[in-house]
Amino acid sequence: MSKLLVFGHQNPDTDAITSAISYAFLLRQLGEDAEAVALGTPNEETQYALNYFKKEAPRVIGDVSQETNSVALVDHNEVQQSATGVEKVEVEFVVDHHRIANFQTANPLFYRAEPVGCTNTILYKMYKEYGVEVPKDIAGLMVSAIVSDTLLFKSPTCTQQDIEAATDLANIAEIDVNVYGLEMLKAGTNLGDKSEAELIDLDAKSFPMGGANLRIAQVNVVDPEELLARREALEESMRAANSENGYDTFVFVITNILTSVSTVLVVGDYKDKVAQAFNSSYTDGLLTLPGVVSRKKQVVPPLTVAFEG
Amino acid sequence: MSKLLVFGHQNPDTDAITSAISYAFLLRQLGEDAEAVALGTPNEETQYALNYFKKEAPRVIGDVSQETNSVALVDHNEVQQSATGVEKVEVEFVVDHHRIANFQTANPLFYRAEPVGCTNTILYKMYKEYGVEVPKDIAGLMVSAIVSDTLLFKSPTCTQQDIEAATDLANIAEIDVNVYGLEMLKAGTNLGDKSEAELIDLDAKSFPMGGANLRIAQVNVVDPEELLARREALEESMRAANSENGYDTFVFVITNILTSVSTVLVVGDYKDKVAQAFNSSYTDGLLTLPGVVSRKKQVVPPLTVAFEG
Repeated sequence: MSKLLVFGHQNPDTDAITSAISYAFLLRQLGEDAEAVALGTPNEETQYALNYFKKEAPRVIGDVSQETNSVALVDHNEVQQSATGVEKVEVEFVVDHHRIANFQTANPLFYRAEPVGCTNTILYKMYKEYGVEVPKDIAGLMVSAIVSDTLLFKSPTCTQQDIEAATDLANIAEIDVNVYGLEMLKAGTNLGDKSEAELIDLDAKSFPMGGANLRIAQVNVVDPEELLARREALEESMRAANSENGYDTFVFVITNILTSVSTVLVVGDYKDKVAQAFNSSYTDGLLTLPGVVSRKKQVVPPLTVAFEG
Repeated sequence: MSKLLVFGHQNPDTDAITSAISYAFLLRQLGEDAEAVALGTPNEETQYALNYFKKEAPRVIGDVSQETNSVALVDHNEVQQSATGVEKVEVEFVVDHHRIANFQTANPLFYRAEPVGCTNTILYKMYKEYGVEVPKDIAGLMVSAIVSDTLLFKSPTCTQQDIEAATDLANIAEIDVNVYGLEMLKAGTNLGDKSEAELIDLDAKSFPMGGANLRIAQVNVVDPEELLARREALEESMRAANSENGYDTFVFVITNILTSVSTVLVVGDYKDKVAQAFNSSYTDGLLTLPGVVSRKKQVVPPLTVAFEG
């Protein structure tokens, strides 16, 4: 039996990177020869967490079928968000908190999904079910992911279970979750040194919707004006990404984590449909969406209804 | 919010009927307004278990979207094995032990699959995780399902977890699992009063495979000759089912539960391909497969490889 590789989605965020680390550790305690890997390098927020808890970033893999025949997916299941070659290997385990789509297996597998705010919240429950103690550094990474995915418990995706898991994990990690959490989120908003092409790809996912191919990217900021000053170049990069990759429409969501207001740039064929999806309209070519902070719960569902409904 | 309907697959077997009952009970303890229903009436084996533990069969539903907007699937996930109208409702929960295919959702959900022999083995773990006591009659139904799916622990699908769960549940139900189990399995082999059309539909599932549409049915017997005496009429019914429903090939597996030998009738376009899948050949028009007792683990996978490989 070949090594079990454990990885999160492309353009990894803090949950994708750290849930691979925390699940691989758990699987090793259960006797699996598991290694955490990643489909990209950590963003600045994730790097802050890795540095703080003195953990290495997982190594980045290419075509997974060149390395192994058996994998565990965390924080995703859709094939277009996963590793190159994933359709040629056996998916033996999935732990996730997203919808299930574009996913199938030939054989029975272990699949654990729950509608909570963060994959690491589910993983923390699994550690408890299996009676495995969470090491201090891994607890730190797990609470970092919950803070990241729930924007410090402010996202509508946040559940009571996420808050309870974060509280327990912060105790194990010996941190004040509010102080540490805000510092970590701020580290992730440090975007000044990124090119436009990097900015629109930092946390971007593809979603096939009713025949159209949407690309939806999101960045968190404390000062949206800083990014909007580069709007023309950003839109140029989005246009280039559309034509290079066959996206019909690129939606770039700039979320102010202090005010919970998102400003949205849209480039491509379905600009009007995107505005309609949010019952909104363009002012100066921008959509302003107060209270919208969650791609999964507040951006993808209304777009899905508009494109597939 | 509308009532949560909980149901197993079409042509329900003992696990499909009883896991709906045991999961609906658990969900009610967790505060859901859940009702167990079914996509067909119990077979004789299941009816034996229901009579023994004095439980009513779940009511049979038609188009599920006429009744509710939210459902829990047990012991299946593929849409072609599920209720009419299932694609119009929200699948909020799945507990299953099969491959995942032909399944997708628009929203995050609770999905729990494990590669064990029986859905009720997973449900028993969930009762323990949530700290919910299993009532005596429900424990009896749950152990009945494990006996049924694992052919009293003889199937290659049976895991150590199934044996442990069955042992605990038999204690709660106050039965000797080997004595009760064999009586229940024998009750299910009482096929003399069934028409050929009923026999080939008792435990039948459809599997799209590489462009072909296979129908695979299985019956358990203690005397295969009794059925093979009706072979001509059985094959006539299989041919009729193929042309009425657009199946390309009908595979009817007759499993001797005492000797663990399966005898297979095949009708349709891909007779040779089916024989090749099992590295076997027809003797007198029949395939004889020693040691083959599990459709999921020993019939579907080699056919999938032969048709899709």
